[in-house]
Amino acid sequence: MSSESVLDTFTGWAATAPRAPLQPHSYDPGPLGAEEVEVAVEYCGICHSDQSMIDNEWGNARYPFIPGHEVVGSIVRVGDSVRGLKLGQRVGIGWYKGSCMHCHSCMEGSHQLCPTAKPTIVGSNGGFADRLRSHWAWAIPLPESLDASLAGPLFCGGSTVFAPLLDFDVKPTHRVGVVGIGGLGHLALRFLNAWGCEVTAFTSSLNKQDEARRLGAHKVVASTDSKAMQAIAGTLDFLLVTASADLDWNSLIATLGPKGRLHFVGIVPSAIPVHVFNLIPRQRSISGSPVGSPALMSTMLEFCARHGIVPQVEHFPMSKVNDAIQHLRDGKARYRVVLEAGK
Amino acid sequence: MSSESVLDTFTGWAATAPRAPLQPHSYDPGPLGAEEVEVAVEYCGICHSDQSMIDNEWGNARYPFIPGHEVVGSIVRVGDSVRGLKLGQRVGIGWYKGSCMHCHSCMEGSHQLCPTAKPTIVGSNGGFADRLRSHWAWAIPLPESLDASLAGPLFCGGSTVFAPLLDFDVKPTHRVGVVGIGGLGHLALRFLNAWGCEVTAFTSSLNKQDEARRLGAHKVVASTDSKAMQAIAGTLDFLLVTASADLDWNSLIATLGPKGRLHFVGIVPSAIPVHVFNLIPRQRSISGSPVGSPALMSTMLEFCARHGIVPQVEHFPMSKVNDAIQHLRDGKARYRVVLEAGK
Repeated sequence: MSSESVLDTFTGWAATAPRAPLQPHSYDPGPLGAEEVEVAVEYCGICHSDQSMIDNEWGNARYPFIPGHEVVGSIVRVGDSVRGLKLGQRVGIGWYKGSCMHCHSCMEGSHQLCPTAKPTIVGSNGGFADRLRSHWAWAIPLPESLDASLAGPLFCGGSTVFAPLLDFDVKPTHRVGVVGIGGLGHLALRFLNAWGCEVTAFTSSLNKQDEARRLGAHKVVASTDSKAMQAIAGTLDFLLVTASADLDWNSLIATLGPKGRLHFVGIVPSAIPVHVFNLIPRQRSISGSPVGSPALMSTMLEFCARHGIVPQVEHFPMSKVNDAIQHLRDGKARYRVVLEAGK
Repeated sequence: MSSESVLDTFTGWAATAPRAPLQPHSYDPGPLGAEEVEVAVEYCGICHSDQSMIDNEWGNARYPFIPGHEVVGSIVRVGDSVRGLKLGQRVGIGWYKGSCMHCHSCMEGSHQLCPTAKPTIVGSNGGFADRLRSHWAWAIPLPESLDASLAGPLFCGGSTVFAPLLDFDVKPTHRVGVVGIGGLGHLALRFLNAWGCEVTAFTSSLNKQDEARRLGAHKVVASTDSKAMQAIAGTLDFLLVTASADLDWNSLIATLGPKGRLHFVGIVPSAIPVHVFNLIPRQRSISGSPVGSPALMSTMLEFCARHGIVPQVEHFPMSKVNDAIQHLRDGKARYRVVLEAGK
């Protein structure tokens, strides 16, 4: 067990204006809360929602702030009331770093639905830094067999696509489609293949066809190919949309069979026009979900360890964070970028 | 057990053109199929979809045809391969009078999702007549304790609002809303009250407030009352839409709590604009379903018999079918009209 390590200020890379390069930034974290752990950041993934927050796409950015919410690191301080964690333990922290712990959602284990859950980077500083604090419940122990340098993206992107498989009852016998083969989608393919499903990847073109098969897809369909879309019509039990674009929803809904579900985890900009004629006769559903709960994340990590599932990652030193963000903006990431702290 | 009773022609009341009064009409039913039963009609409810078919609202009416798909009557003939039914037995027949019995949906007990299920009145003659034939699987025995003169509307309207309670897992602990207090909605209130839920009726005005409470609602909210809508925001687990009108969907979705579901059984004319921001953060669903399966209808009838649930009905002699339809068109039905055969 390590001894306590106290810093007066935390130092990282802050967004200061929409689309501006991140700048070095220090802040005073104040006293450690009784329920908090403090983590020395080792790795931090870059998520699409970091970019959305940097650019103030959702209108809730308060500059300056340090992005980063796919953190892996070791616990260097523990508050007096922390449970289940100890100094030196390696944990991950994702989109949320706290919740009220006593509302109905928290009490039933759905902490991700807590109305006052505390996002890691909204009105707060995140993990492109040397240190990050979190409520103990949201610092999730990393199984030793998972490579810490690759695990970061599991804590936001990973849990976002893993959660609906459990919470919306995807079965190994199901035929499941994944729309969008990027940071979230590539993990969805790996999860669903290990889940036992027949997995179909939908892509805007067939460029990524071999990639998608390597990642776990049994079939690849170009969503622009009306003939291929017709061939798959009425067959899917579950269609997971990880893309954040306006697509031809009617043709995607048409791929669903009886009792099929179209499920969104990506923030699609425009409203989706849903006609009840597309729902009622075949008893279909449309739904959405955010990141996973702490318990869900533990379950996911155990599943990842069992099946050897990790994100496909490109590493950048944290000092090159602006190069890394540009790499993402250019659409070049295959499929997730992870920053290495202290480099 | 009665002996067989053979008619060369069946006689009823047929639609001949959109909105035209029904005319007396006879047809030759041909030989009885091996899997069919023939029922002497005693009662037949009038459903909103009879009116839609009479008026060719869905573009699939072929005139002349006899409407009527909420039939109660006694079996007067049985085909050679009929199972589980016998002469003289009282049964009900609803929206479907047959399905293929071997597709995946039929084989898993979801006969209502059979792609070739045979609607009672689409391209076929229904129950505003002296006789009706049905595949044995879709002729559902009526428990003796249920009043045959009131039971007809259970077989279409009733099963339509009962099915989602089972198929979409409504629990007695749930807070459930019902939108639209008419033929379907009044049965939904009775079912949900007996189901153990907290039941909220949404109406366009508060005129029906006392009625809704008498039917089983614990609360009544005028959906036009923004203050009342705000008070109920974020609280419902399930919201059943039985109305067939374009409503303010955003304000109705806002009544749903975490993991809440907006469920459609009414044919809403326009597309519903669904924004993923309304689904993802609280993990909500939107769905729809048609009528129930044969097994579902049996379960519903047992539940109705146990709890003394029947539709609230006004009777008309079948010879006054056009008066009865006008009564419905005038919006005066409280809440379901049933025709009495032979009168």
